[in-house]
Amino acid sequence: MMKDDGLKGKRILLSHGDGGALTRKLIEEIFYKKFYNDILIKDQDAALLPACDRPIAMTTDSFIVKPIFFPGGDIGKLAVCGTVNDLAVSGAEAKFITTAFIIEEGFKMEDLAQIVDSMWQTARECGLTIVSGDTKVVEKGSIDGIFINTTGIGVLPAGVNLGFQQIKPGDKIIISGNIGEHGVAVMASREGFSINLSSDCAPLNRITQSILKNSQGVKFMRDPTRGGVASTLKEIAISSHNVDFCINEENLPISQEVNTVCQLLGYDPLYLANEGKILAFVAPEECEKIISLMKELPYGENTCCIGEVQEGKGDVLLKTIIGGTRKLNLLSGISLPRIC
Amino acid sequence: MMKDDGLKGKRILLSHGDGGALTRKLIEEIFYKKFYNDILIKDQDAALLPACDRPIAMTTDSFIVKPIFFPGGDIGKLAVCGTVNDLAVSGAEAKFITTAFIIEEGFKMEDLAQIVDSMWQTARECGLTIVSGDTKVVEKGSIDGIFINTTGIGVLPAGVNLGFQQIKPGDKIIISGNIGEHGVAVMASREGFSINLSSDCAPLNRITQSILKNSQGVKFMRDPTRGGVASTLKEIAISSHNVDFCINEENLPISQEVNTVCQLLGYDPLYLANEGKILAFVAPEECEKIISLMKELPYGENTCCIGEVQEGKGDVLLKTIIGGTRKLNLLSGISLPRIC
Repeated sequence: MMKDDGLKGKRILLSHGDGGALTRKLIEEIFYKKFYNDILIKDQDAALLPACDRPIAMTTDSFIVKPIFFPGGDIGKLAVCGTVNDLAVSGAEAKFITTAFIIEEGFKMEDLAQIVDSMWQTARECGLTIVSGDTKVVEKGSIDGIFINTTGIGVLPAGVNLGFQQIKPGDKIIISGNIGEHGVAVMASREGFSINLSSDCAPLNRITQSILKNSQGVKFMRDPTRGGVASTLKEIAISSHNVDFCINEENLPISQEVNTVCQLLGYDPLYLANEGKILAFVAPEECEKIISLMKELPYGENTCCIGEVQEGKGDVLLKTIIGGTRKLNLLSGISLPRIC
Repeated sequence: MMKDDGLKGKRILLSHGDGGALTRKLIEEIFYKKFYNDILIKDQDAALLPACDRPIAMTTDSFIVKPIFFPGGDIGKLAVCGTVNDLAVSGAEAKFITTAFIIEEGFKMEDLAQIVDSMWQTARECGLTIVSGDTKVVEKGSIDGIFINTTGIGVLPAGVNLGFQQIKPGDKIIISGNIGEHGVAVMASREGFSINLSSDCAPLNRITQSILKNSQGVKFMRDPTRGGVASTLKEIAISSHNVDFCINEENLPISQEVNTVCQLLGYDPLYLANEGKILAFVAPEECEKIISLMKELPYGENTCCIGEVQEGKGDVLLKTIIGGTRKLNLLSGISLPRIC
């Protein structure tokens, strides 16, 4: 992809991380080349951002996904989406992001350039400015390839006040599309399976901003990443007061490919990671309107209602297709490492 | 140190990073136990911070130091100091910090608890609130121990306007104490040398706030970490306009221990990392006052003037003790990896 840049065959050296001449060259030729903006290139120890008369949201995540390139994305796209989505589901408008790279000596320069390009494209799609960065290089064998941290800040618009405590019996539970696709795509890619499925990795800020702007009915949102929809719902149920969440298995949007892989390998799609989905708790009278708003936007086409809130004691109850009820708990013991 | 907490013999498992029940347990028993505060425990995807009517400074750094415990500190103290100091030298008051951990499967739980304790103590010393975090676990062998990212935001006080462009011929160059001590302490610890020297790792925000509050003469500051005093000066010289920096070798504060190790091993203390030092460019008429202010405070006792700014073309000129002049350039090729 980057063959024209003369990067082919070049590799990261320890000296690229020593704070000297090669560090400067790497910053200018790889990072600034894509991330260039007026704040970043001031090249201060800290980026200087404008004052903000609204509450600020701040979130951090490190990304360790293996393999670093997978169907539907790469570690760079994932790192920007992950932080944008954490800001988005908190109700904030994502504004600024920092990027910190830890790279293994010998890493291919053209792979780094491709990852940086993904980050830049995703940030641009989200209207996000990359304001500061850091690059460290460790000896060959001290890390498996590349890890990326992104930390983002956003602004909470007036009138937005999401929280566990807003969730009440009768509220509807919405998911913005098919579940388990990131988990299956990464796992299949890692194991060399050939399936026709991409990660759902995507930025969700346009969806969250649309529904917050056009409806007063959004109570709480979260993106069901590690641990999947089940663990995320259970965490919310624990933190909320006197409610159970009742989920209808027949309403869960799951693609045929995810179902097939899960049946073959014994995974439950409710516990597989998503990187482009929102779980939203909404007032029942606004549910249809919010679903329509979400369906209109990219990454929201398969939005549907999967259940509702009822009085209870913090349980997540799955009404199965065959008519039974099963309690969903936090993911425990079935580990799928390095999924994000 | 943490033996009473029942952590002895316990180790990090892959499941501590899966977003499920063990992740929650780790967060509650290790991280929240120390970092507890009203913002953090709201446990949202993004922390909610107050509005800010002044410009905001933001900086990020990942820390990969080896060994993780060294004389004078550990990776946790280093991670908090590093980010506080980047904010401090930009003139900002450090306010909020995020922490993101990448941990190797099998890492000792009591070591993690000790690192978390160091971070908490350092954050408390700096008046800093830890507002959000992330924990990832990778398979044994995929990372060497533990890496930590910290990202901080601070507030720029009214009247503070530091920048390369403020540096003028005649300005004095101040260093807040002995140079090269972090580099030598970490290297000696790594190699098993027995020397009586600690890293200078320390938070510098009290010093920067004192001199900015009490003098109008501060033009620019930077902390000379990776690449040392020489690389940092050269970077500033390149970014500034039509100036050279003239440094007097005989004025450079260097301890006997650092001198001895450097002579034995062929290192130049000007290129060794510092983690508790400030380089400040100040107006000549304010120089003595600023030095006095710095000497009064912890970590500033050995502050002195090491040189001055003159008209030029971006060179850093070292007047040697024997009467010659040597140009200092960016660190190049002599790599001391994983120093911070």
